[in-house]
Amino acid sequence: MRATIAFSLLSLVLSATGQRFVRFIATDGKEYTGDAILPSGTTDAALSKQAKVITGDILGDFQITNQVKTIKTLLAPLDPEKTRTVRCVGFNYVAHANEANITIPDFPILFYKPWTALSNPFGPIPVTAGYQNQTNFTSTMDYETELVVVIKKKAFNITEDEALDHVLGYAAGHDVSHRGWQIDRGGQPQPQYSMGKGADGWAPWGPAIVSTEIIKDPQNLNLWTKVNGVLKQNDTTANMIFGVANLVSFFSMGITLLPGDIIFTGTPSGVNLGKADPQWLTNGDVVEVGTENIGTCTNTITYT
Amino acid sequence: MRATIAFSLLSLVLSATGQRFVRFIATDGKEYTGDAILPSGTTDAALSKQAKVITGDILGDFQITNQVKTIKTLLAPLDPEKTRTVRCVGFNYVAHANEANITIPDFPILFYKPWTALSNPFGPIPVTAGYQNQTNFTSTMDYETELVVVIKKKAFNITEDEALDHVLGYAAGHDVSHRGWQIDRGGQPQPQYSMGKGADGWAPWGPAIVSTEIIKDPQNLNLWTKVNGVLKQNDTTANMIFGVANLVSFFSMGITLLPGDIIFTGTPSGVNLGKADPQWLTNGDVVEVGTENIGTCTNTITYT
Repeated sequence: MRATIAFSLLSLVLSATGQRFVRFIATDGKEYTGDAILPSGTTDAALSKQAKVITGDILGDFQITNQVKTIKTLLAPLDPEKTRTVRCVGFNYVAHANEANITIPDFPILFYKPWTALSNPFGPIPVTAGYQNQTNFTSTMDYETELVVVIKKKAFNITEDEALDHVLGYAAGHDVSHRGWQIDRGGQPQPQYSMGKGADGWAPWGPAIVSTEIIKDPQNLNLWTKVNGVLKQNDTTANMIFGVANLVSFFSMGITLLPGDIIFTGTPSGVNLGKADPQWLTNGDVVEVGTENIGTCTNTITYT
Repeated sequence: MRATIAFSLLSLVLSATGQRFVRFIATDGKEYTGDAILPSGTTDAALSKQAKVITGDILGDFQITNQVKTIKTLLAPLDPEKTRTVRCVGFNYVAHANEANITIPDFPILFYKPWTALSNPFGPIPVTAGYQNQTNFTSTMDYETELVVVIKKKAFNITEDEALDHVLGYAAGHDVSHRGWQIDRGGQPQPQYSMGKGADGWAPWGPAIVSTEIIKDPQNLNLWTKVNGVLKQNDTTANMIFGVANLVSFFSMGITLLPGDIIFTGTPSGVNLGKADPQWLTNGDVVEVGTENIGTCTNTITYT
């Protein structure tokens, strides 16, 4: 009995401080990688005020030290220099494929964002003139909440069973999308999604990478979007067509996935695409995307 | 008259040695970046036996020295570490769009290859099991000769007039493509080309980056493909729908193009896609892609 209580207390301590990787500017003005310390009773890393400093490389050998720093600003949890490729998945939830009038895919639909799209969990989503309203062209900016996967070790032709061993952890992410450039102007009749999803800052993610030690099952997480505080998307990763292990294995088919590579795993239903009365995002709109047990990214659509 | 002759001789010397950037293993076993010395009367950098060693960074400040090294093996002309993003263009020649039964696009069709696809101008094109023949699935490996553009300085929302100032030079390239994964299994009815073009080693390029000082007009270059010595594609960049300056400007729309970024500018007609009697590439096929005044890449389809 005494052993059980001691074990439970130990578990509590571990779960409160264990490997929610964050990158941040501390109150001393310096940048650190750390293990977020969550306020009691919370699971959103965005609420962390402090973190234990991590030395070394979270994609390789690292140490969680006892040095505690106070967080001033959370950054994207991985230094962008460490990421080579950002993969994304299209129409990976049945209800989202249905709302967009897309046939349920037989294989994962892979597309990419350029490296320059990666951005911080708090800050602007820049929208330049080419994506704003023009004569005969509507700015069709849309939100997409997604579970994000971070690769920690090389993967090449790996099986689904091996896949999660190559994953460092999970984050929340926003696959910012402009439907006009994604579809209408993306190259009919076979639109490539690239121009509609690739602008600078169109991939905010974070606020932490929550390790596979904490999230053992990535297929049982709620994820949502709020626009100006109003709930727009609300679903669970249980409804993915292709789960994380399947995606990682599939994308390694003849292709080397590298440490630091990032996968946006697709968005559930509730986006504006396909709606009879879409409410496209516009200048000043505040968009929160969140995933259970990870946290929230809150970014503002900013015309530049 | 004497001045004219002297000037012509000077031009000849310059054109024979000026800024055909190559990267190579020399006979001393070390890797160098160099300025290729072409044998008299040739313009294919693949024929270079020697190069003047370049010190510094060809994307920034560099010096062409008088130290001459003998080339043992030509590599892709830019260290792959220097490239962040590989952009590609779909259906950028009218005759190719027609042969594939695609409507002429109103805007450039952008897609990406992952960084890991970049490979050397001579060597294997690996084809792993997932891309080989399977029950009810044909290995539909196809060739695509393309003019390749290398960005030398940051570009963001630049005009077409400014675009070529951001270009270091041009290379030949092979957009290796598997039509089954590109289209049938890429995500019907809106296939994303990613899985069909993204395997390791599916973007051989080189043999040199020929500078904009030598190629002042990228829209007047012959380009071709030979398979096992038989001519399959033969066209000119004059027939591009969207020229290089247009592409560079367009892709910078709200997006930062970085030094070392690479653009594959699309292939002309003559590919197997759309043919009534396609002759898909198979193990051992030798594919040469070439561009006038730049040179050839010769790679062998290699089942692994």
